[in-house]
Amino acid sequence: MPPRIIDSLATTEALAEVFSDRQVLQAMLDFESALARAAAREGVIPQGAAEAIACAAAAENFDSAELSSKAQRAGTPAIPLVKSLTDRVRAADPIAARFVHWGATSQDVTDTALILLLKGARKILSTDHDRLLIALRKLASEHEHTVMLGRTLLQPAPPVTFGLKAAGWFAALKRGWSRIDTRFAEAEAIQFGGASGTLASLGDRGDAVGHALAAELSLKYPDAPWHAHRDSLAALLAACSVQCGSLGKMARDLALLMQGEVAEAAEPGGDGRGGSSTMPHKRNPIACSLALASAQRVPGLLASFLSSMVDEHERGVGGWHAEWPIITSIIQALDLAVASMAEAAEDLTVDAVRMRANIDATRGTIFAERVMMLLGATLGRDVAHKLLEEAARRSLTENRRFVEVLADLPEVTRVIEPGTLRTLDTPEDYLGMAAIFQKRLLER
Amino acid sequence: MPPRIIDSLATTEALAEVFSDRQVLQAMLDFESALARAAAREGVIPQGAAEAIACAAAAENFDSAELSSKAQRAGTPAIPLVKSLTDRVRAADPIAARFVHWGATSQDVTDTALILLLKGARKILSTDHDRLLIALRKLASEHEHTVMLGRTLLQPAPPVTFGLKAAGWFAALKRGWSRIDTRFAEAEAIQFGGASGTLASLGDRGDAVGHALAAELSLKYPDAPWHAHRDSLAALLAACSVQCGSLGKMARDLALLMQGEVAEAAEPGGDGRGGSSTMPHKRNPIACSLALASAQRVPGLLASFLSSMVDEHERGVGGWHAEWPIITSIIQALDLAVASMAEAAEDLTVDAVRMRANIDATRGTIFAERVMMLLGATLGRDVAHKLLEEAARRSLTENRRFVEVLADLPEVTRVIEPGTLRTLDTPEDYLGMAAIFQKRLLER
Amino acid sequence: MPPRIIDSLATTEALAEVFSDRQVLQAMLDFESALARAAAREGVIPQGAAEAIACAAAAENFDSAELSSKAQRAGTPAIPLVKSLTDRVRAADPIAARFVHWGATSQDVTDTALILLLKGARKILSTDHDRLLIALRKLASEHEHTVMLGRTLLQPAPPVTFGLKAAGWFAALKRGWSRIDTRFAEAEAIQFGGASGTLASLGDRGDAVGHALAAELSLKYPDAPWHAHRDSLAALLAACSVQCGSLGKMARDLALLMQGEVAEAAEPGGDGRGGSSTMPHKRNPIACSLALASAQRVPGLLASFLSSMVDEHERGVGGWHAEWPIITSIIQALDLAVASMAEAAEDLTVDAVRMRANIDATRGTIFAERVMMLLGATLGRDVAHKLLEEAARRSLTENRRFVEVLADLPEVTRVIEPGTLRTLDTPEDYLGMAAIFQKRLLER
Amino acid sequence: MPPRIIDSLATTEALAEVFSDRQVLQAMLDFESALARAAAREGVIPQGAAEAIACAAAAENFDSAELSSKAQRAGTPAIPLVKSLTDRVRAADPIAARFVHWGATSQDVTDTALILLLKGARKILSTDHDRLLIALRKLASEHEHTVMLGRTLLQPAPPVTFGLKAAGWFAALKRGWSRIDTRFAEAEAIQFGGASGTLASLGDRGDAVGHALAAELSLKYPDAPWHAHRDSLAALLAACSVQCGSLGKMARDLALLMQGEVAEAAEPGGDGRGGSSTMPHKRNPIACSLALASAQRVPGLLASFLSSMVDEHERGVGGWHAEWPIITSIIQALDLAVASMAEAAEDLTVDAVRMRANIDATRGTIFAERVMMLLGATLGRDVAHKLLEEAARRSLTENRRFVEVLADLPEVTRVIEPGTLRTLDTPEDYLGMAAIFQKRLLER
Repeated sequence: MPPRIIDSLATTEALAEVFSDRQVLQAMLDFESALARAAAREGVIPQGAAEAIACAAAAENFDSAELSSKAQRAGTPAIPLVKSLTDRVRAADPIAARFVHWGATSQDVTDTALILLLKGARKILSTDHDRLLIALRKLASEHEHTVMLGRTLLQPAPPVTFGLKAAGWFAALKRGWSRIDTRFAEAEAIQFGGASGTLASLGDRGDAVGHALAAELSLKYPDAPWHAHRDSLAALLAACSVQCGSLGKMARDLALLMQGEVAEAAEPGGDGRGGSSTMPHKRNPIACSLALASAQRVPGLLASFLSSMVDEHERGVGGWHAEWPIITSIIQALDLAVASMAEAAEDLTVDAVRMRANIDATRGTIFAERVMMLLGATLGRDVAHKLLEEAARRSLTENRRFVEVLADLPEVTRVIEPGTLRTLDTPEDYLGMAAIFQKRLLER
Repeated sequence: MPPRIIDSLATTEALAEVFSDRQVLQAMLDFESALARAAAREGVIPQGAAEAIACAAAAENFDSAELSSKAQRAGTPAIPLVKSLTDRVRAADPIAARFVHWGATSQDVTDTALILLLKGARKILSTDHDRLLIALRKLASEHEHTVMLGRTLLQPAPPVTFGLKAAGWFAALKRGWSRIDTRFAEAEAIQFGGASGTLASLGDRGDAVGHALAAELSLKYPDAPWHAHRDSLAALLAACSVQCGSLGKMARDLALLMQGEVAEAAEPGGDGRGGSSTMPHKRNPIACSLALASAQRVPGLLASFLSSMVDEHERGVGGWHAEWPIITSIIQALDLAVASMAEAAEDLTVDAVRMRANIDATRGTIFAERVMMLLGATLGRDVAHKLLEEAARRSLTENRRFVEVLADLPEVTRVIEPGTLRTLDTPEDYLGMAAIFQKRLLER
Repeated sequence: MPPRIIDSLATTEALAEVFSDRQVLQAMLDFESALARAAAREGVIPQGAAEAIACAAAAENFDSAELSSKAQRAGTPAIPLVKSLTDRVRAADPIAARFVHWGATSQDVTDTALILLLKGARKILSTDHDRLLIALRKLASEHEHTVMLGRTLLQPAPPVTFGLKAAGWFAALKRGWSRIDTRFAEAEAIQFGGASGTLASLGDRGDAVGHALAAELSLKYPDAPWHAHRDSLAALLAACSVQCGSLGKMARDLALLMQGEVAEAAEPGGDGRGGSSTMPHKRNPIACSLALASAQRVPGLLASFLSSMVDEHERGVGGWHAEWPIITSIIQALDLAVASMAEAAEDLTVDAVRMRANIDATRGTIFAERVMMLLGATLGRDVAHKLLEEAARRSLTENRRFVEVLADLPEVTRVIEPGTLRTLDTPEDYLGMAAIFQKRLLER
Repeated sequence: MPPRIIDSLATTEALAEVFSDRQVLQAMLDFESALARAAAREGVIPQGAAEAIACAAAAENFDSAELSSKAQRAGTPAIPLVKSLTDRVRAADPIAARFVHWGATSQDVTDTALILLLKGARKILSTDHDRLLIALRKLASEHEHTVMLGRTLLQPAPPVTFGLKAAGWFAALKRGWSRIDTRFAEAEAIQFGGASGTLASLGDRGDAVGHALAAELSLKYPDAPWHAHRDSLAALLAACSVQCGSLGKMARDLALLMQGEVAEAAEPGGDGRGGSSTMPHKRNPIACSLALASAQRVPGLLASFLSSMVDEHERGVGGWHAEWPIITSIIQALDLAVASMAEAAEDLTVDAVRMRANIDATRGTIFAERVMMLLGATLGRDVAHKLLEEAARRSLTENRRFVEVLADLPEVTRVIEPGTLRTLDTPEDYLGMAAIFQKRLLER
């Protein structure tokens, strides 16, 4: 199910589905039926009540518009849902209706439902990360020897390889996914504390019901309820946000490589992608745009979440009310960025010829550092720096190869043999550790 | 139409409706039909084409799910919409289909549609602000003489009046709405620039078509297209965000006054408001929670928008792609906060007796400043400060009226007559400019 | 005085000076001596006391390190400052010492001091904005006819002029400065409320002292103290933050134009600017880097300020404690961005020849829209769009002028005469409203 | 050394010192001398040069004001520092001067210096966390049996223990510190890549020099330079920001408990802490204010950092220029919050009598849930809920014990025996899992 139009550049369809009314409802209902089963198993409520509750707890039985409307008055969707569920159970089994939501509080429902939804999101994110990491590893391997300009502060610098660049994206994203995955694992625990977080209303059966509930939902049973401590959730969202930054970096690199004047790479077009409504010649970096949009939106969203952590006492005023749309937006933005970059990486056009041509267009001035090192031991790094600064300027204004300009300078020829000098601007000879770094980055 | 459950604490229904698929679609279609009419009026396209286009441009003719899905591939909903609209026009009038979207680019559609939606939002916000400001003015007037504790750093301080407090909220929110309203007026202009913002494709008719288009849509015709300059939009959203801060301040004050131990005010309950799923005795500050949630979410959202202003050249990569969900969220959060505070203010329970009792419970120590001023001219402010610090401590530990403790101190009785001393803790006598400040705040 | 090294890329020297210990101290002391003079003028304290206080209130008399250290324990620098000032006054005139800080509270000192500092900042910002706006107007005027590529989503688009681009920056920054200046004017009011904001300790003289104090400091006397309502400050900072976005947009445009492969503009180098420690050939966009760094830092800072607006009752816990470093950082970042862009604009190298060459390098494909409009009325916009998409692809792969490729297509030649066709890729003929828009933007 | 006055509520003195000019300078110089030693050890530069460089590399030899000023023109402090260092070395040993900064680029200096500074910060943070965690564990243990109101949405709820509350803070902060510490360990690696990140200028000795450099500085040698990938740094700062949220939560709880009307806890006063300049009776929550100010400032700062991650290619324009003040501010804010909460926790006054009194003041209505559970199995949860809602209202308006009101209701007495009913409002009997949860939280 696609998102609303207003959100059409903010989420993948898969993640829009995860947080759809149907799934949100079902997750809350899953909590209620699991609670009933757990309580019945521990002898706290009748077995028959659990069955009746589980039977009624299907999303299609509920009117999401009405619930949403009442949620706002109640300050939580849990209250109207519990009421509707109770009514529905009562219709079938009046005795069972007495035991709906037994021992739980609203936040138990919504927090645990959230965790169930996040579990669903994790699977999709994992799949999309797999696609992306596989594609990047492949790109890196294929382009181990593809030289291209290094660019620092958007100015030409000594060469790198496209393989190293892709390996850099790969390693950052792999580290990032590993952090996210760890945080998902940490966060996937039920919230179950009752009114004040002590499970007092369940007397001496609270712990047993809690354990059983966690088992029912295949979630962890935490040391204690976490209703007023949102750090694990925050740590998960923070990891997601850091990853959006890394994805944005990759997207910006690609968008810059796709510029007409650079033209070293291009994301796939065709089939409704990347066109313009008025410019027939265009091939726009749409995947990059979406990833960059995520990278731009997510830091502020995370800030909102972190601000909302300052919850008062056993349940905050406003803090946890703010959470759902923030969490949804971050997770959706992340998946959109990952999926977009996966699509871009899987079918990326890389123009190695143009990469080489863009190096040549610098007339070899980018090798000034190399010459500086050769002159430095004799002239000093700083004297050489000044000499070469001037030579680079002449090379560009006079449109001559840098090494030719240097061949006119006695300070240079005194130190560097003509034969050596002539080959100093071969990019393949000035890659340093590029291949080794690339290998190490891909091995992790 | 209520929002999705996940957003049920993030928007009013009215604002959910403004950004619903139907309205978003219709706003984009309104642009296309207005453009066609404008172009026809200026003789740029045939009159019949304009009629056929206008006729087809009804939201109910389009499949929003399909458009949303294609929008993501295209990087904008405008491209698939223009395509669908063209197909639909063609079915009725093949010649007219040639002239759909004539001279415009995608961003012209989406930006102008956004402005049309914001115009709708402005009306709702205006109504809700009216309600709130009227209610606050009434509250302030009614409580001009209701004394209550001042509280600084959440500690008791010399008295204020509830009238002054309400007038403070009123004045801040009135200033805030005035800023917002000004920014709305500034921002309500069409975006119409074509591919690069020069309207080149309309030859010498660009300006005329632009003027006519603005007139058709009852929007301003700006000095130049603003596709790459989002400052007016940013200024509007910034004004909205500042207002959320002021609303959050009011909500926090109310939530604090509603604490069981303070109990000086209460927002209306009943009819599904403010209950708890497990605690029958509760009357929760739901309106405050929603306003505070807005105040917590919005600053980060604004940060995201400001970050996205750094658009590249004539149309950014990612920046404007990030905008829609941010703008929607800010406007919706603001309306929710305004409407919530309006509801709270209209039926606020104010307990003047409890307010007085809470003052009395300080044993009069909050008047230490008053005594200090009387002693200061003789003893010096700082010597008096130390003396009174100690006396206040004794008053609280010994549970005696502060002025009684003072009556034992020769340093005090030497300066202040017993008769005067005894009445120094009358709150009504130590309100300074409260009434005058209140009047000035309400007059603006 | 230059900033600390850690802040060396975060503020101009002038703005570092504004918030230096000396100036902060002096601003607080200016409040105290103005208060004393005002109180004396109204007969509230002896005239001699006012003179003694004013005499002692010179920053050089105080140890800023000690004050800073004590400020942290006290939660505000005002408390230790008042104590030190009292001690100093006492040494000279024990009676006068009794009247230091008469009727004021700590926040009165720090808030009013802040406003005094901001007034100083406003002057510097105004001067730097003047420089920038003058330079941009000049650039725009000089380049009214300098054609260059339009670029949307970083892809080549129909031409614009550099004049129009510069005028766009100019107009956004002029609008922005006008908003900032209005907000400064709104915010430049004293804070003077005493303990709870009622001036109760001054009895019936509060208003008179307040008026006199405002006059002494050449600040406005507000309707009421604003200690707990930070909206005017927030609105000022928001306006500054929006401006940072506009400056960032200009900086990004310039940095992109400076890329080696584009090379259409360059900010001034020389004299320690823009070099590299290891690459002698480099001319880095340092001014752009600084402006972009500001644009990246400021949105989050503003979010922090907006979050801190939710102050509790008459004085918040944490909210106003958070303000100073945020405000300082935003104002400093803004000035650094303005000053950097002023420097860049005043000596910008613009390479009109390269701009033309970069247009030519597209082989004329960017005029596809123009052709589409000519074909559209006959073929339909959408049919023409597809045809030209294919032709543009061939133009680029076959490295032929776009119009030559088109000359082979009967669908085209049937509609467009060969003579017309041949000149369709003249940039100067496809600028639409560029000159008129530029004029309008510069006139505001 | 205390911070500037403007930052006096933004950092501890210890952390102000870590990022002082002296330490920043020394860290950069430590990089240069370690590089020289490493290069000499690998035979890349003469041993004598390394000694001369190391000898000159002392912070006191350099003028920080001049460097700061030049840093802004250069876009980095590294360039003027390398120049000054070279000059200084030359004065002593002209040959050695040739080899300063051999093979490195500016970012290598500043990034590695940053890591060295962060290592210093880690130690201080670790010590302050130890203090805080020890104090909290002690508080929790001492108050295992101290009952107090639970409070949800700032309304009274069934009881908890202060021990459980303190254990909740403890566990969240312990988890948080563990995340931070892990991220420090991950981030503590040298940055060493030369111009484009390939170490090309060192030929085949890059790896060896890099390894030696890392060993010299006792930092890790990473898989590859991380100049353009800031995710490890971002993850560290994100962990710090999450911790600020947890600290803010603890501070808000404390500030609320310190309210005059609640009065259940108080942070230590005396010695310049917590007074007011005008109110002698005040004991302000200064430590809470500072921690809350940190919690309010940090989310926005982190957002700024995350936004700046989108670095272009091999070195960004603006992104990394923005980093230093953001990083400094986050780390300093964190330490201030930790140290403040440590101080508060170490000498916290806890008023168990008042806690009990505040429970009693609810008339027992907070046990409505307990009664509901007893009635629920017979009447149904929802019927009981309505009945008790009404009874709670009567209890409060009629000022009678809740259980007494219930004793009048046949629906209740039919189910619950009078003897049982009378004791249902004993807080000690309705603590559920409080003690067990506390134990588990402290054990982790």
